[in-house]
Amino acid sequence: MGHMKSSLSPAEIASSLKELWTPRIIGEVDDTYIKVAKVQGTLAWHSHEEDELFYVLKGHLRIELENDNVELAEGEMYIVPKGARHNPVADEECHILLIERKTTLHTGDVITDKTVAIEKQR
Amino acid sequence: MGHMKSSLSPAEIASSLKELWTPRIIGEVDDTYIKVAKVQGTLAWHSHEEDELFYVLKGHLRIELENDNVELAEGEMYIVPKGARHNPVADEECHILLIERKTTLHTGDVITDKTVAIEKQR
Repeated sequence: MGHMKSSLSPAEIASSLKELWTPRIIGEVDDTYIKVAKVQGTLAWHSHEEDELFYVLKGHLRIELENDNVELAEGEMYIVPKGARHNPVADEECHILLIERKTTLHTGDVITDKTVAIEKQR
Repeated sequence: MGHMKSSLSPAEIASSLKELWTPRIIGEVDDTYIKVAKVQGTLAWHSHEEDELFYVLKGHLRIELENDNVELAEGEMYIVPKGARHNPVADEECHILLIERKTTLHTGDVITDKTVAIEKQR
């Protein structure tokens, strides 16, 4: 196990990603996945049956909600409550860390051309 | 709910804490707590029945393990696997973010004068 005992830099991993809106699983805490993603533009309006945490590693993320927007600067986080329809938007390239239960579907209740199955997030 | 739709800065909250080694719950993602803590010195050797993620917001953290140490610089993370005995150490003041299942006990299988019950982490 010696070679597994190394630290990870979520910011560095996010920075290295080639594809936008394609989360990469970087760890697991029991039934929860830790992921990073590189995003720009908009994903899709959707909701999940689970809570979803967004933490901005670099850049700025806007989370559009049905009656409000949340603006996240670098180092800020927001937890979208389960069931809340939301749409993440980044006007410029943004690197994020995501925390969500393993059962969470990428675009929740909708399928779009940006939807990435969990098998493709490894 | 309008007033709840605000972003949080884990680094700012950690920085504001007065007591060392006293995690503050700042959010929940289903059955998982997101916490921050201000630490310096050493906690205690212990283990949990759950995985535990450490992410360094500021400073430097060393996680002593039974056969190895993990050194975490700012922006780096490590997940202590369930059952692994570990001891977090910070030579200087360090601010961390923790991700762990809600059932996780602060110092796991041991009780020390630094142990903080979950009710005191709110």
